[in-house]
Amino acid sequence: MNDGRSRFRDHLYHDEGLGFWLDTSRVQAPEGFLSALEPRLASAYAAMNALEGGSIANADENRMVGHYWLRAPDLAPDAAITEAITTTLARIHAFASDVHAARVRPARATKFQHLLVIGIGGSALGPELVAAALGSPADRMRVWFFDNTDPDGFDRVLDAIGDGLSATLCVVISKSGGTKETRNGMLEAESAYTRLGLDFAKHAVAVTGEGSELDRYAVSRRFLERFPMWDWVGGRTSELSAVGLLPAALQGLDINGLLEGARRMDVLTRRNVTQTNPAALLAAAWLAETGGVGKKDMVFLPYKDRLELFSRYAQQLVMESLGKELDRKGTAVFQGIAVYGNKGSTDQHAYVQQLRDGVDNAFVTFIEVLRDRTPQRLTIEVEKDVTSGDYLSGFLQGTRAALSERGRGSMTITLETLDAVSLGALIALYERAVGLYAELVDINGYHQPGVEAGKKAAKDVIDLQKRVWRVLESRAGEALTLEEITAAALGDDAETVFWILRHLSANPGRRIERVKVAQGATGLSSSPLDWSFRMIAAS
Amino acid sequence: MNDGRSRFRDHLYHDEGLGFWLDTSRVQAPEGFLSALEPRLASAYAAMNALEGGSIANADENRMVGHYWLRAPDLAPDAAITEAITTTLARIHAFASDVHAARVRPARATKFQHLLVIGIGGSALGPELVAAALGSPADRMRVWFFDNTDPDGFDRVLDAIGDGLSATLCVVISKSGGTKETRNGMLEAESAYTRLGLDFAKHAVAVTGEGSELDRYAVSRRFLERFPMWDWVGGRTSELSAVGLLPAALQGLDINGLLEGARRMDVLTRRNVTQTNPAALLAAAWLAETGGVGKKDMVFLPYKDRLELFSRYAQQLVMESLGKELDRKGTAVFQGIAVYGNKGSTDQHAYVQQLRDGVDNAFVTFIEVLRDRTPQRLTIEVEKDVTSGDYLSGFLQGTRAALSERGRGSMTITLETLDAVSLGALIALYERAVGLYAELVDINGYHQPGVEAGKKAAKDVIDLQKRVWRVLESRAGEALTLEEITAAALGDDAETVFWILRHLSANPGRRIERVKVAQGATGLSSSPLDWSFRMIAAS
Repeated sequence: MNDGRSRFRDHLYHDEGLGFWLDTSRVQAPEGFLSALEPRLASAYAAMNALEGGSIANADENRMVGHYWLRAPDLAPDAAITEAITTTLARIHAFASDVHAARVRPARATKFQHLLVIGIGGSALGPELVAAALGSPADRMRVWFFDNTDPDGFDRVLDAIGDGLSATLCVVISKSGGTKETRNGMLEAESAYTRLGLDFAKHAVAVTGEGSELDRYAVSRRFLERFPMWDWVGGRTSELSAVGLLPAALQGLDINGLLEGARRMDVLTRRNVTQTNPAALLAAAWLAETGGVGKKDMVFLPYKDRLELFSRYAQQLVMESLGKELDRKGTAVFQGIAVYGNKGSTDQHAYVQQLRDGVDNAFVTFIEVLRDRTPQRLTIEVEKDVTSGDYLSGFLQGTRAALSERGRGSMTITLETLDAVSLGALIALYERAVGLYAELVDINGYHQPGVEAGKKAAKDVIDLQKRVWRVLESRAGEALTLEEITAAALGDDAETVFWILRHLSANPGRRIERVKVAQGATGLSSSPLDWSFRMIAAS
Repeated sequence: MNDGRSRFRDHLYHDEGLGFWLDTSRVQAPEGFLSALEPRLASAYAAMNALEGGSIANADENRMVGHYWLRAPDLAPDAAITEAITTTLARIHAFASDVHAARVRPARATKFQHLLVIGIGGSALGPELVAAALGSPADRMRVWFFDNTDPDGFDRVLDAIGDGLSATLCVVISKSGGTKETRNGMLEAESAYTRLGLDFAKHAVAVTGEGSELDRYAVSRRFLERFPMWDWVGGRTSELSAVGLLPAALQGLDINGLLEGARRMDVLTRRNVTQTNPAALLAAAWLAETGGVGKKDMVFLPYKDRLELFSRYAQQLVMESLGKELDRKGTAVFQGIAVYGNKGSTDQHAYVQQLRDGVDNAFVTFIEVLRDRTPQRLTIEVEKDVTSGDYLSGFLQGTRAALSERGRGSMTITLETLDAVSLGALIALYERAVGLYAELVDINGYHQPGVEAGKKAAKDVIDLQKRVWRVLESRAGEALTLEEITAAALGDDAETVFWILRHLSANPGRRIERVKVAQGATGLSSSPLDWSFRMIAAS
């Protein structure tokens, strides 16, 4: 080993049992960084220990943080939680097996063959990641997602499912049970079943908190089944609860493998000797690269098509957890780390130019999977003794070297194979690394106070729209100016009224039309804000 | 219009013909920013004018930059170029129509029904964007992509195509004709056809530079057709050349609409009065938000599922164009703007928490599409007088307001509808905005000198692997240490030899195995770098 590369030997973490490696030799950190960090890491270990023991780790919301118990129910601080986890897992297995065996079956088809998951954010990103990473055409059910409130998006998915809708099982997922995107997606799906003369409830399952709006709806409509969400599991760490396990089990994926991988990674990341704890090594590397103040973006380059969605999953986990205004003392710190990336070598063509030569505001996390393809598949040579997979590995190494040459930092996670166990381990690794990092910078990594502001502002827009609608309806046929409508809707925000009317009037079915003001004698065209609007009287 | 919102009126650009709006009222710019910038903008207009006139705008590569001519061939500086563009477009229309009418047909199926596009970077991102934004199950052909050199990724696509392979047309796209990922994808596809007893060439078309490696291959194998790439079209601005138009035409999309939209946007963005030029307004807004030194990331939130890939397309266009070490004077400037994003409202749940409350290093580009769904589709109400689309619009407005409240900047592009014309316009808008921004910060936006380093380093890895392979082969059956192998392979880089061997030995078919060193008397486990490796003698 030559001198320049002895860093590699000293910074290569390996766990043989999991087939997992972490190389931090290319992280840009000063000599002695890790030992200087040790006291803060020791506090972080203690905090994570308390969290796993059932402390109120999410103080703002007065909640425990229990996602680690999901894969080790005996660690839960009380027997009722252990029991709830175990029972739910058994019910998931039983329900999936009933669906696969057509003991639970649709009204007008012999068997459920499609799975439509309706959820957003923490209720979609995990299931999407797992479906893409582990799924194949041989799955027990084909999986689709409604993960937005885009009407055209709903139509596209329904068009793709086509006649298969009568053999489609819907899993509606909302922890709070009141997420509007999910509520809308459910109503749009329900309407599609109704148009086919089918009872939606006989094709629907809910995953939600007990007693939530969705839960009550599921009870009153008699959904096929309901699975619980618990207040001690955050949306962004819910993949190994019913949120992620139910869709994966229905798809026919190995959910026991996911849980086992997470449990085994938890054993490694529970260690309080930094050199032996890969999550601590990751969190420390992030701190070194970002200065602990988010000064560099975290770019994921997994060299594996199946992991293309990992960056989106990590985006939520990292950004929603760490992107905080205040630390735990209440000081304004404006924390966070921006996350992006898709896959290598594809992304090399998009932006390694900038990462290497341009603005120095990113560090890369490479993810390598050693096993190129399933062993039963034929491997061809693209040159003598060289395969496509050798190129994939070569591009990763080449990019790592090209960045390193320029003092741009990176770290590399290597997995022997990509399967349920290693994916579960990867999920658990990042959950713990984010938890540790939040401790290192002393923020609450488990709440999301800033999300409410946008929802509240959106609700205000919808409320204003309802008032605008009533104004136009009450004076149907009459062209009204923005100012007139705004005043009559008891508002003072003509800009928002304009946005609302511009949108409504672009959709013919809504019966609201733009009335353009004639150009004045000056010949200057009028501003769209001088348009009037009117509701066409119902025919 | 109340005072606080009068900025909106003053910063709302609207083009009625294109159904296009740009709101820059929420950009964080000091008073008078635009007028102070006017002299630099005037130079940028002059430079763009010269570029369109055929100047050597990409001086490092001694090339003209002609993507604007693709949609207005008469603007090309010489008649041969005009002729080449016009002829190629006519050939694309003719070929697509021959395929659709089964005048060009596969050997063992009545008609080509699938389209497999093999390309990466600039030869994939545009076709992927257009296919996702405009495609539907009603398309003339179903489109698939090989956009990497991941063996498992190839297998996944081939598994999904399944029996359809015999009715699959491959379009192999590489400007240089030597891109290894694309070469590997083509060879893997060729092998799949061969295994079915089919002649790949009779199912293949090439889009490449005349005389390139791929071009010569296509000639020698007698591909169905060849379409040209020109050195005056860069990969990241090639969507409106054969690279993008051929796949879109085969898919049955309206390529004349794409060209028309781009041509009409070019008319607007050629204007040299800033207030009337939406690309100049965009470029100026980027400059205001980033300080002209990339200090904030550009986050795209298109509230439309169909535009989910726009950020990936823009990522390459912006980052590869602007991410440069040197300005045109040769000064080290480390330029660039990082780009990420997926879609709203989905991404609100992932990271608006951070964008609003956390590290202040991003500005948002909202993209709104006013038309919610095709008019013939039923629209349901999710509440009285309120649709899913109203919520989509409400979430956009709510997020914009929530960011603005905290002094986080944004801009909003609004399209009346999403169709070929407006998508062509959007593509052209960003091409011009990037061009203008490159002028404002005085860099060459058309080369990518940093990309070569990674490719060169990857080639070195592959070359070293070949030497390692020969060493192991010549001493087959014998376990050799890393140091022995490295020395015998005439290398000094045992780290890279380790990466190579770790990868090869994880793939059973490669006949290379790890030989673990027995633990020493100390009981300490040995480092993986102390492993030996051997090639199993061929059976």
